[in-house]
Amino acid sequence: MPQNVTQKIISSHLVSGNMSAGSEIELRIDQTLTQDATGTMACLQFEALGVDRVKTDLSVSYVDHNTLQMGFRNPDDHRYLKTVAEKYGMVFSPAGTGICHQLHLENFGKPGATLVGSDSHTPTAGGLGSLAMGAGGLSVALAMAGEPYTITMPKVVRVYLEGELTGWASAKDVILHLLGKLTVKGGVGKVFEYAGPGVASLSVPERAVITNMGAELGATTSIFPSDENTREFLTRMDRPQDWTELVADEGAAYDEEIRITLNDLEPLAAKPHMPDQVVTVASLAGTKVNQVAIGSCTNSSYADLASVANLFAGKHVKFETDTLISPGSKQVLKMLTREGLLENIIDSGARLLECSCGPCIGMGGSPVSEGVSVRTFNRNFEGRSGTKDAQVYLVSPLTAAMAALHGEFTDPATWGKAPQVPVLPDTIPSIRDQFIFPPEDGSAVEVVRGPNIVPLEQFAAVDADIEANVLIVAEDNITTDHIMPAGAVITALRSNVPAISEHVFERMDASFATRAKSITNGIIVAGENYGQGSSREHAALAPRHLGVRAVVAKSFARIHRANLVNFGILPLMLVDKEAYAEFAQEQSVTIPALALKPGEPVELVLQTGSRVSVTNDLTQKELDIIRAGGLLNYVRFSKRREA
Amino acid sequence: MPQNVTQKIISSHLVSGNMSAGSEIELRIDQTLTQDATGTMACLQFEALGVDRVKTDLSVSYVDHNTLQMGFRNPDDHRYLKTVAEKYGMVFSPAGTGICHQLHLENFGKPGATLVGSDSHTPTAGGLGSLAMGAGGLSVALAMAGEPYTITMPKVVRVYLEGELTGWASAKDVILHLLGKLTVKGGVGKVFEYAGPGVASLSVPERAVITNMGAELGATTSIFPSDENTREFLTRMDRPQDWTELVADEGAAYDEEIRITLNDLEPLAAKPHMPDQVVTVASLAGTKVNQVAIGSCTNSSYADLASVANLFAGKHVKFETDTLISPGSKQVLKMLTREGLLENIIDSGARLLECSCGPCIGMGGSPVSEGVSVRTFNRNFEGRSGTKDAQVYLVSPLTAAMAALHGEFTDPATWGKAPQVPVLPDTIPSIRDQFIFPPEDGSAVEVVRGPNIVPLEQFAAVDADIEANVLIVAEDNITTDHIMPAGAVITALRSNVPAISEHVFERMDASFATRAKSITNGIIVAGENYGQGSSREHAALAPRHLGVRAVVAKSFARIHRANLVNFGILPLMLVDKEAYAEFAQEQSVTIPALALKPGEPVELVLQTGSRVSVTNDLTQKELDIIRAGGLLNYVRFSKRREA
Repeated sequence: MPQNVTQKIISSHLVSGNMSAGSEIELRIDQTLTQDATGTMACLQFEALGVDRVKTDLSVSYVDHNTLQMGFRNPDDHRYLKTVAEKYGMVFSPAGTGICHQLHLENFGKPGATLVGSDSHTPTAGGLGSLAMGAGGLSVALAMAGEPYTITMPKVVRVYLEGELTGWASAKDVILHLLGKLTVKGGVGKVFEYAGPGVASLSVPERAVITNMGAELGATTSIFPSDENTREFLTRMDRPQDWTELVADEGAAYDEEIRITLNDLEPLAAKPHMPDQVVTVASLAGTKVNQVAIGSCTNSSYADLASVANLFAGKHVKFETDTLISPGSKQVLKMLTREGLLENIIDSGARLLECSCGPCIGMGGSPVSEGVSVRTFNRNFEGRSGTKDAQVYLVSPLTAAMAALHGEFTDPATWGKAPQVPVLPDTIPSIRDQFIFPPEDGSAVEVVRGPNIVPLEQFAAVDADIEANVLIVAEDNITTDHIMPAGAVITALRSNVPAISEHVFERMDASFATRAKSITNGIIVAGENYGQGSSREHAALAPRHLGVRAVVAKSFARIHRANLVNFGILPLMLVDKEAYAEFAQEQSVTIPALALKPGEPVELVLQTGSRVSVTNDLTQKELDIIRAGGLLNYVRFSKRREA
Repeated sequence: MPQNVTQKIISSHLVSGNMSAGSEIELRIDQTLTQDATGTMACLQFEALGVDRVKTDLSVSYVDHNTLQMGFRNPDDHRYLKTVAEKYGMVFSPAGTGICHQLHLENFGKPGATLVGSDSHTPTAGGLGSLAMGAGGLSVALAMAGEPYTITMPKVVRVYLEGELTGWASAKDVILHLLGKLTVKGGVGKVFEYAGPGVASLSVPERAVITNMGAELGATTSIFPSDENTREFLTRMDRPQDWTELVADEGAAYDEEIRITLNDLEPLAAKPHMPDQVVTVASLAGTKVNQVAIGSCTNSSYADLASVANLFAGKHVKFETDTLISPGSKQVLKMLTREGLLENIIDSGARLLECSCGPCIGMGGSPVSEGVSVRTFNRNFEGRSGTKDAQVYLVSPLTAAMAALHGEFTDPATWGKAPQVPVLPDTIPSIRDQFIFPPEDGSAVEVVRGPNIVPLEQFAAVDADIEANVLIVAEDNITTDHIMPAGAVITALRSNVPAISEHVFERMDASFATRAKSITNGIIVAGENYGQGSSREHAALAPRHLGVRAVVAKSFARIHRANLVNFGILPLMLVDKEAYAEFAQEQSVTIPALALKPGEPVELVLQTGSRVSVTNDLTQKELDIIRAGGLLNYVRFSKRREA
């Protein structure tokens, strides 16, 4: 039967399951990537699995998030990651080398390969024809240990491209167009597979812009075929051997189809505060711009920055517009330097930052109060820039550069002829020696842990009913940001669960951690959609550290529910949502944990004497994972049983 | 009478006073500089003076400290500084343009000019033959308003240089040698004036290294003559018109003399945790190095970074040694780029940071826990790097580069032949268009204040006796760091006195601010040497905001005593030091403020009924300043009287 690109990769990596949309499938994973904000926990989890060496074809540990190093925690984390990589056979990319997704595209991504990464923008490698998915740290740790990766078989949407981009429209405008059309929830459970004659008009870096920001659709991933452009790119990157052709079979079926005529596109912008609030740049003309930030895993390729540098040639950005440029990799920076383009950037008055994520994740580069910040990034959530009342717009590098030069948005119709920039310069320097490749045998390497690196604790198995106290009765739509806040200070504690746990729920209730530590077992009671938002696993792990054994809610968000299971916390659903009113803080509750069966209701016994019926949507395996004290224990027990 | 260089500049700028060492003299100030960490307060103070336009020949407002922008406060400060500069006629140097002292040397410093700057390393411009002194923000504000600058006529020490530097010894080793010999207190009340045949062997950037770090001697300033090398440097920097010859007259007298034979010097290092803990680099051979940081106002010239880049050519720094490079200015960065030297740095594995102070002031770039960090900076105080237990060594760029390449200190005898690097490349690009030059008439410019910019409050005059309560009874040797802690979070509040005041004494007593706000007037009681350390004026200003009206101590540190006077706080000294034991927290005390006369004792009446005799060493003018509610009020009153 003819297959599309997604089906080809899935079928060739299928370990178990049925390839019909909605079924649970297990995939063999060829490559993994981690970054430092999530990678320390993933590596601690990998260490806990007791495997001698990573089992993937390639695992790369990148440092790109916490590069400011305001104190010992970040550098201690980096040193830990470096030594773990050497010991267990991962490639290590030190701070300053570049942004994980840009580096992976340039140096390691492969058509046809499966990649899971502990970063939601891992789909960038889909620009090369890799099936690349973002995942929680524990999932990546398990993939490194050779375990298959479990997903729901996605629907495959064919995005049929016709024509080619013209004028000032660029790859960023393709994905902004889709986001405007489909919204940030439009891709849930789907893979966006690009096809049609328009594909050939897009270079690999342009394709990567689209697959990168496809994450904002909520998609499982996005992917382009691997064609002549892919071969050309890999050849230019000195990796011709990594190329294989991978295109959809004629007559391959898709679950859905979207058609885009590239010629119809014009410069677009996502308005505050969501990537799907898309309007034309023309409609924003006259809006003053206080800051422009160019870079991030979405738009920091050579072509992106060279196009900016060309526009800046002989010109100065407006002094009123703080302009920040973060190249995606040292290779990009070297190419800009050699081609004389770095001087354009310096002369323009723009500020050259280190090759890292930087302002995109609020690690510096915050705009002024109430400032309009125009960014080539992928997310403009309220406050993400570090300035609560900033107004962040997401645009292409061309649009950003024009905003910097004018100090305001202007109508693209007034910009004249769009510049042509080659995808890559004639000569391409290698930065391969910037990576640390692991020794054949790393067993002698000593893993160095500073005081910020706290070994994982082993959570107790659930082998009795649980007496617990209600720690908080929370409302509907609690996000993982409510549960486990982010920001530079707290993010620096990601490898230190006891320390980061002090911040659980602190923006809602500063006494939460103290109260939790004063009792043995805790319960969180919540309304609908508990745990929505970012996938951070610390929103389950840190409460578990504080003794939380169950969350009783009206309903759960999908990823957080999975994280609760992974860390041994029972996700229990109220049978009668009105019973929510029965709960009060401090109240004791008996959970009949031993009586739990998949999908069957049980009764909680409250201190008041009343009984509240709760159910679950756990599979038997998930229940076994919770009973084992979490997925790490479960995997270790399974391995012991096998041995 | 023949004069030395220092006397020539002082006599040509003398407004009042007697040029005998120890006398108070007033100087006309030609130039000022501010940086953003101290400049926001200096500008608020300047605004409070009600002057239409700066009265100096040149005032430059640099942004180089708070460049990470972790939130709205830093960018709001920068925007405020930019608009104040435009309104009042200062040149503005935006974030990312470079470090104030390096930029001032390259673009604005002048032989024979007086310069005061709100940064302790202002003496850098002494390398050009400018009499350049660090001062508190208020002193700089007054200088901008055309007021003379008051200092104690310093002793002039002739540092007689013979021979020339050989092998791997560099300018940094000259000042490290002096620090080892004289200690960090060895320069108090002195100007170090360099002379002798060895002077001609040192380029202006080399001289600036020496005068910059002369600040660590506690000196008033350091200065070199302006000679042919100075003319050459200024000509190369496209400023031949700024050159004047300025050398000591034959037979000029000096108060002291030190002789250094440059040929005798070898690479030196200041060990943790003080710049005067100087040893030879050879003696450190074998010490592992976790981090190397190259840059700062001491060592970030083209010659410094080019020498590093040459050593790095074709080599890679040790992966174990996190190597950070911050060029001193965009001009330096451009020259490195054009000469192909930037590529050496990128290829070496070193990290390229923004042109700013960066790791030198703990704004990022912290080393690992217990890490050995080898830095080309000027201070290695415990914890200044951001990592409490780090071991920081201060060295030259050559020594730092060799440590990065070896991953440890090695004996310079094994380094082979030292490289020759030209002071400047053949062609020198200008960065003059990176500065914002103010309009002729700035009256229409609107000063923009974000929520972090809080206008100065006007402190009440002392026109009655003061009923106050003891807020704290502190020990001997309280530093200004105890009183007003630093660090990125608190430093971001420098333009917001109400907010920064919440942190007064917080590391000693978290309730201080709350208690102070609950009463009307407060007293601080302390032991010997109260207010030692950094000159930050917030250590007086913030307590005054909290209602502190007097400090009763056994003795005071000099600069802090002056800051207390400037902000209207009485510095009272116990006549009988044993009476310290009479004081207790919360106790009420009556201060007979109206009865105070210069140098005469008065009696405090304590709640217990006991009477404690205190005296003062205030001049009549200082007492008048305090009575007026501080220097700003005093100057405004004087102006009103004059008008």
